[in-house]
Amino acid sequence: MPTIWVLQGANLNMLGIRQPEVYGKTTAAELDAQIRTHARERGCAVEIHYTNSEGTMIDLVHRTHHEKIDAIVMNPAGFTHAGYALRDAILAVQVPCVEVHISNLYRRDFVSAVGIASVGIIMGFGLDGYLLGIDAALRLIARNGAA
Amino acid sequence: MPTIWVLQGANLNMLGIRQPEVYGKTTAAELDAQIRTHARERGCAVEIHYTNSEGTMIDLVHRTHHEKIDAIVMNPAGFTHAGYALRDAILAVQVPCVEVHISNLYRRDFVSAVGIASVGIIMGFGLDGYLLGIDAALRLIARNGAA
Amino acid sequence: MPTIWVLQGANLNMLGIRQPEVYGKTTAAELDAQIRTHARERGCAVEIHYTNSEGTMIDLVHRTHHEKIDAIVMNPAGFTHAGYALRDAILAVQVPCVEVHISNLYRRDFVSAVGIASVGIIMGFGLDGYLLGIDAALRLIARNGAA
Amino acid sequence: MPTIWVLQGANLNMLGIRQPEVYGKTTAAELDAQIRTHARERGCAVEIHYTNSEGTMIDLVHRTHHEKIDAIVMNPAGFTHAGYALRDAILAVQVPCVEVHISNLYRRDFVSAVGIASVGIIMGFGLDGYLLGIDAALRLIARNGAA
Amino acid sequence: MPTIWVLQGANLNMLGIRQPEVYGKTTAAELDAQIRTHARERGCAVEIHYTNSEGTMIDLVHRTHHEKIDAIVMNPAGFTHAGYALRDAILAVQVPCVEVHISNLYRRDFVSAVGIASVGIIMGFGLDGYLLGIDAALRLIARNGAA
Amino acid sequence: MPTIWVLQGANLNMLGIRQPEVYGKTTAAELDAQIRTHARERGCAVEIHYTNSEGTMIDLVHRTHHEKIDAIVMNPAGFTHAGYALRDAILAVQVPCVEVHISNLYRRDFVSAVGIASVGIIMGFGLDGYLLGIDAALRLIARNGAA
Amino acid sequence: MPTIWVLQGANLNMLGIRQPEVYGKTTAAELDAQIRTHARERGCAVEIHYTNSEGTMIDLVHRTHHEKIDAIVMNPAGFTHAGYALRDAILAVQVPCVEVHISNLYRRDFVSAVGIASVGIIMGFGLDGYLLGIDAALRLIARNGAA
Amino acid sequence: MPTIWVLQGANLNMLGIRQPEVYGKTTAAELDAQIRTHARERGCAVEIHYTNSEGTMIDLVHRTHHEKIDAIVMNPAGFTHAGYALRDAILAVQVPCVEVHISNLYRRDFVSAVGIASVGIIMGFGLDGYLLGIDAALRLIARNGAA
Amino acid sequence: MPTIWVLQGANLNMLGIRQPEVYGKTTAAELDAQIRTHARERGCAVEIHYTNSEGTMIDLVHRTHHEKIDAIVMNPAGFTHAGYALRDAILAVQVPCVEVHISNLYRRDFVSAVGIASVGIIMGFGLDGYLLGIDAALRLIARNGAA
Amino acid sequence: MPTIWVLQGANLNMLGIRQPEVYGKTTAAELDAQIRTHARERGCAVEIHYTNSEGTMIDLVHRTHHEKIDAIVMNPAGFTHAGYALRDAILAVQVPCVEVHISNLYRRDFVSAVGIASVGIIMGFGLDGYLLGIDAALRLIARNGAA
Amino acid sequence: MPTIWVLQGANLNMLGIRQPEVYGKTTAAELDAQIRTHARERGCAVEIHYTNSEGTMIDLVHRTHHEKIDAIVMNPAGFTHAGYALRDAILAVQVPCVEVHISNLYRRDFVSAVGIASVGIIMGFGLDGYLLGIDAALRLIARNGAA
Amino acid sequence: MPTIWVLQGANLNMLGIRQPEVYGKTTAAELDAQIRTHARERGCAVEIHYTNSEGTMIDLVHRTHHEKIDAIVMNPAGFTHAGYALRDAILAVQVPCVEVHISNLYRRDFVSAVGIASVGIIMGFGLDGYLLGIDAALRLIARNGAA
Repeated sequence: MPTIWVLQGANLNMLGIRQPEVYGKTTAAELDAQIRTHARERGCAVEIHYTNSEGTMIDLVHRTHHEKIDAIVMNPAGFTHAGYALRDAILAVQVPCVEVHISNLYRRDFVSAVGIASVGIIMGFGLDGYLLGIDAALRLIARNGAA
Repeated sequence: MPTIWVLQGANLNMLGIRQPEVYGKTTAAELDAQIRTHARERGCAVEIHYTNSEGTMIDLVHRTHHEKIDAIVMNPAGFTHAGYALRDAILAVQVPCVEVHISNLYRRDFVSAVGIASVGIIMGFGLDGYLLGIDAALRLIARNGAA
Repeated sequence: MPTIWVLQGANLNMLGIRQPEVYGKTTAAELDAQIRTHARERGCAVEIHYTNSEGTMIDLVHRTHHEKIDAIVMNPAGFTHAGYALRDAILAVQVPCVEVHISNLYRRDFVSAVGIASVGIIMGFGLDGYLLGIDAALRLIARNGAA
Repeated sequence: MPTIWVLQGANLNMLGIRQPEVYGKTTAAELDAQIRTHARERGCAVEIHYTNSEGTMIDLVHRTHHEKIDAIVMNPAGFTHAGYALRDAILAVQVPCVEVHISNLYRRDFVSAVGIASVGIIMGFGLDGYLLGIDAALRLIARNGAA
Repeated sequence: MPTIWVLQGANLNMLGIRQPEVYGKTTAAELDAQIRTHARERGCAVEIHYTNSEGTMIDLVHRTHHEKIDAIVMNPAGFTHAGYALRDAILAVQVPCVEVHISNLYRRDFVSAVGIASVGIIMGFGLDGYLLGIDAALRLIARNGAA
Repeated sequence: MPTIWVLQGANLNMLGIRQPEVYGKTTAAELDAQIRTHARERGCAVEIHYTNSEGTMIDLVHRTHHEKIDAIVMNPAGFTHAGYALRDAILAVQVPCVEVHISNLYRRDFVSAVGIASVGIIMGFGLDGYLLGIDAALRLIARNGAA
Repeated sequence: MPTIWVLQGANLNMLGIRQPEVYGKTTAAELDAQIRTHARERGCAVEIHYTNSEGTMIDLVHRTHHEKIDAIVMNPAGFTHAGYALRDAILAVQVPCVEVHISNLYRRDFVSAVGIASVGIIMGFGLDGYLLGIDAALRLIARNGAA
Repeated sequence: MPTIWVLQGANLNMLGIRQPEVYGKTTAAELDAQIRTHARERGCAVEIHYTNSEGTMIDLVHRTHHEKIDAIVMNPAGFTHAGYALRDAILAVQVPCVEVHISNLYRRDFVSAVGIASVGIIMGFGLDGYLLGIDAALRLIARNGAA
Repeated sequence: MPTIWVLQGANLNMLGIRQPEVYGKTTAAELDAQIRTHARERGCAVEIHYTNSEGTMIDLVHRTHHEKIDAIVMNPAGFTHAGYALRDAILAVQVPCVEVHISNLYRRDFVSAVGIASVGIIMGFGLDGYLLGIDAALRLIARNGAA
Repeated sequence: MPTIWVLQGANLNMLGIRQPEVYGKTTAAELDAQIRTHARERGCAVEIHYTNSEGTMIDLVHRTHHEKIDAIVMNPAGFTHAGYALRDAILAVQVPCVEVHISNLYRRDFVSAVGIASVGIIMGFGLDGYLLGIDAALRLIARNGAA
Repeated sequence: MPTIWVLQGANLNMLGIRQPEVYGKTTAAELDAQIRTHARERGCAVEIHYTNSEGTMIDLVHRTHHEKIDAIVMNPAGFTHAGYALRDAILAVQVPCVEVHISNLYRRDFVSAVGIASVGIIMGFGLDGYLLGIDAALRLIARNGAA
Repeated sequence: MPTIWVLQGANLNMLGIRQPEVYGKTTAAELDAQIRTHARERGCAVEIHYTNSEGTMIDLVHRTHHEKIDAIVMNPAGFTHAGYALRDAILAVQVPCVEVHISNLYRRDFVSAVGIASVGIIMGFGLDGYLLGIDAALRLIARNGAA
């Protein structure tokens, strides 16, 4: 059974509290439940980590290599803007990374410093992006396994 | 049953022939078959249009309004770089648009002129992006219907 | 009796439907009637063309030369942003062009790629801009005729 | 009877003397006569002010508020390039402002610092722009009065 | 008893009338009363000047030197954007200048052309900024006097 | 009694040691004493936190929400330049933030990445900025309480 | 016998009419005759297409692939400025493309959006550029054939 | 006998007081005496005007036209940075203008907004620049008279 | 005996695993052994620290001050791109810093945010850069000691 | 018989040795032979000069004026990037210049500092560019002679 | 008697031949005669050097140091645009440099790479600039001698 | 025994005379002695060349290829800013180049035009940089020899 790590960047622990007009009213705990249910339906294991520290996020990315995780689904959130060290961390490991953003970055004039290191990016679909991200990750795993 | 139009921008009719190291060897016809199969499994109708003319693409977008299509899945392809009129067309209609790119635009230093008008964007997952795009569109339709 | 062609760029056929908070609720057909009435009062013939294709727009501009039209009133609309070929077309003919924009481009941070080729520009007066544009064109014709 | 103030920015008192190849040979006094005749024909009162000092121009704009003038027709002229304080003055009053430029700013690679504050802009039609500006102002007044 | 001059730049005489959603409904006269009361409580003399002309503002700054004023509290307002000559005037005199802005310039994407010449800047606290500015100026005077 | 948290960003623990020609010779401990005395005089509780880690700073900002602190006085210091995640954290909570900089950023050609999220900013008054910041925060609290 | 397609972009059908001080007085028909004579002398077949629509131009480029044309000589003309989709079309086919411009783009401060996709570029030699372009294409064909 | 007007821009009335490390200790009155002596030796009449208001400076430039002054020697000083209206004034009159700056603008990273309108520029020679400017103006007058 | 701290920034703990085509196959442990051997030969003590957290790195830099370390050899690695707070930390202490990069930043179009704070920089020599960095640090220590 | 000078800029003497994957394996001597043969066939005299010094190149360009050479074929090579003085030299003489580049500058993101001074440019055809350049020069000579 | 070296940069040996509409018809020899006459009248020795090679120009600048020349009058001409090494040479010697340009750089949108190293700059007065430059140099020498 | 050429760019012959506050008081001759001593200790031959002409520097770089020199240690000095032709020369030869700068370019806001062509760069260590450069070159030679 494939294992995916969902890595949640700065301020996502505040989901439901933080700017609900942008990020919605669903809390982080509720989102986690949705992700876990979805992963179970898709037949994959999932582990979810939240951190507000880029250094901790980098450590987590490194661990996906050492622990042979199959794929990362990451929302860099607050690290989107200047997360160059995080970008380098993703490039440093062989684990494919699916990047998710709740909002459409084009509408907010944001550029992802991490984007170049991810295999692909899903943005603008609200929290559904995480579920699409799990699906995208499973497709990447399937293709890599087939190679 | 929801209806989705897949709109394919400039040069996508050359899929399989065009820069296969970037876009793969699957032809447009083979992709269409994959999309149709996937849509059938998801219980939605799908109509696929290819055009190399931005004006024709705009006409198609307008038609989604008049024909009450539920959602658009669009790969602007060649129109990505300067498709401002196409962007305005998407903004002009109420039909939600899911934008798909085969490659990761961040890795190619491309900016989507259309991105601001789409609800969300999926990029970098190869042709799987279309299937994820259908799923994303169905989620948007479901949410809108629930509202 | 002078003849003026009104050339309507991309997405203007959607007037009344498209972003009514920006462009108003008057439809294209209603606007055409206003223009025709105004032209009749001013004693000039008018012909109105809509197209979503820049290539077709360029063909129309060329035809104003061959058919010896006295002046163009053009709203480039969707072609405003990247209509460099359209700009070259206007420069290629001797027919004076009055450029009209419904909204004030300065408020939207838009730059007209066509502006350098037009004799003059009228922007921000809503649909009244077309009527002012007819008047401006008639003044240009009168001055040219006087020369 | 509506009242319009025509506000003439820096160096316009030199009309007819100043770069006649750009601005023509008509003097300021002759232009004033044309504007007054046109206003009389349209049934509106007009008052014309010239100043080379941006501070005086701002005072005039404020006075249009206190004296309940119906509309401003302004050629910022020399204040076009850096008239940010003038821009703020227009934003500060409720009086609608029609901005006029004798030449086409796009052809001279000029950007109007004032443009964002004006309702609409007319440029490139020589001195006819003032007459079109009066007409545009009257249309704005008519619409506002109807509201 | 220390003497402070409060210098009010372009359009501040319109306080209460001008864009009340940004600048509030308090009028210039009411603000002056607040400042005078606050200064009296702090034991300092205050003189308040309004002008819409940058040249007059520069003359006032020069006078603070000749009349040995202890500090300036200045809101450049409309001169914020291009007040380079005003900046030079502040640099020309030895009188310390506290710059006040009613709104937070960072939220409006404004840069103060004057900022480099001021000792310090207080922005975003509404009209309270003037009272904080008086306090800041008194602290500067106290420190300079102690030196 | 209102409670204010003073949050001190990267390298401020080195006050008195670090570039004394820019930041002065007062140590962090001495500054803390000044702040505490001032707060006591003003009748408010104060808690002071130093950290060199942006992640820890974000956690502190989140805690101001959970612990219902009335206002933040923050000197982002080293986080000024690229603290986008910190900016997002301030936007995520409802607690008003007063941003303080010891030096005048305009003189150092620095732009605050955090500035857009703060209510207001005080810069250039040396360590007095903290005391003015406490005062500004108390005014904000008073106004919010009055609403 | 090698076959070359000459593809003429927007506004080139107006040759001889359009800005003769830049593009000369030779008409498109006269140019075609020169090209045909030159091709005949060089022993190659030539087919000439004009279009003002980028979409049609892209279709033509695709057809060079399907019809196994040996080389393209293209003057993108009006498509020079924003012809990114056309650029992608050239990259999509294996047919070598010689890009010709009548005028020297460096003197007009133009950048070719297409240039990166062409094998080589010839600019500034007036209509002679087409004849040099035929020669260049024949040399490319000869080298490719030799490989 | 030729007549030259020396026009002194914003803050030059503070010479000797203002930043003496940049502009020296000579006062405006002492400079005037030097200029007058030099002009007398060169056999030309001279009139010196100081103003801190750009509007007044523009009026003075216009007067050089009406009063048939032979040449202007101008130090725009504070108007250097944004004096676009002043630039237009110089362009509006036929009187040749010699621009003088006390310091070398290249060393201060300043660009003269006025420079394009002046015949020539002399910078970096301290107050000697005025005397060289008188000489340069006399040479211009001599050449123009000879034509 | 002089003491040098080698500070290793984000992702360097992944040496040997991370993009070996860029950074080589030597592991962090092997590099440490090389550095220790080299330092021993040069007669200096060395302490090596790895961290993926910029905050921890800043704490380490501060400790070099408190523990009176003679010099720092730092590879900022992932902190190169946005390590402004780290830069400020180096400026805050008196300990000279030698910056080392394994690859040539010019070839990767990277700019070091830290570079301005380091005494000198060595880049492009692979892991040999650390040994050269030790030598450079010893030369700095020798010169400082001689002063 | 017309005479053409072929001027070879910096590093072209290293042809065949220098980056053969970009510039090919043909040596400078072999290229010279090709050029001489081609010129002989075309009935024109040719003289070839190599230099790595821009000053020497400028002297050569000046000599084409004094020695009444009919045309220049120049590959600025290393002078392409900053050869502004060379550009001025070409503008200084009346001799028409054909600029040749072995590779397509658009593909290398290079801009020719010399391009504005050349009549026309040929790039991307490898060493064939020189032969096409001779032909282009002969056409220029023929046209100029006919005038 | 003071000695001045006049250093003439790239292409000035072509004076009278080169773009006479910009640089006039006076030849280099005629200019030299004017300079020599003027210097004799002013009682100073003068030596004039022309070179098209920046390296030779740098050698000349160095020689002014070794030969104890009192001042340089330099027209960098073709070296204006990229003469950074020349700029460094002027900074390397103690000899004051007066920079002269025949035309007004502001009108040609040129920036002098050398300007920051010169004491002062004289531009736009045609060949008279050299004579004014001699005068400026003599004033510098006089002041330095007085110190 | 390996042979290294030390190539010294523009103005380095003025070492000891030139801006001693930046470059120190050691003369070029004294530096040469240090380099020779160091090379002798390291067991390598060294040859030192100074030139102020980029063309001569390029010739020297070419000679390192023909004379089979093992490595270059180059301080481009004045050629740092615009030495693109020199950069191309280094790329043209196979000889590894170690680039040395006396000062830290980051502190002076300089970018090396040559940097991309060098294997590695050492900057900011004063004249010690040359000795470190010799050591770096020897390490490169050792590694290449081992390959």
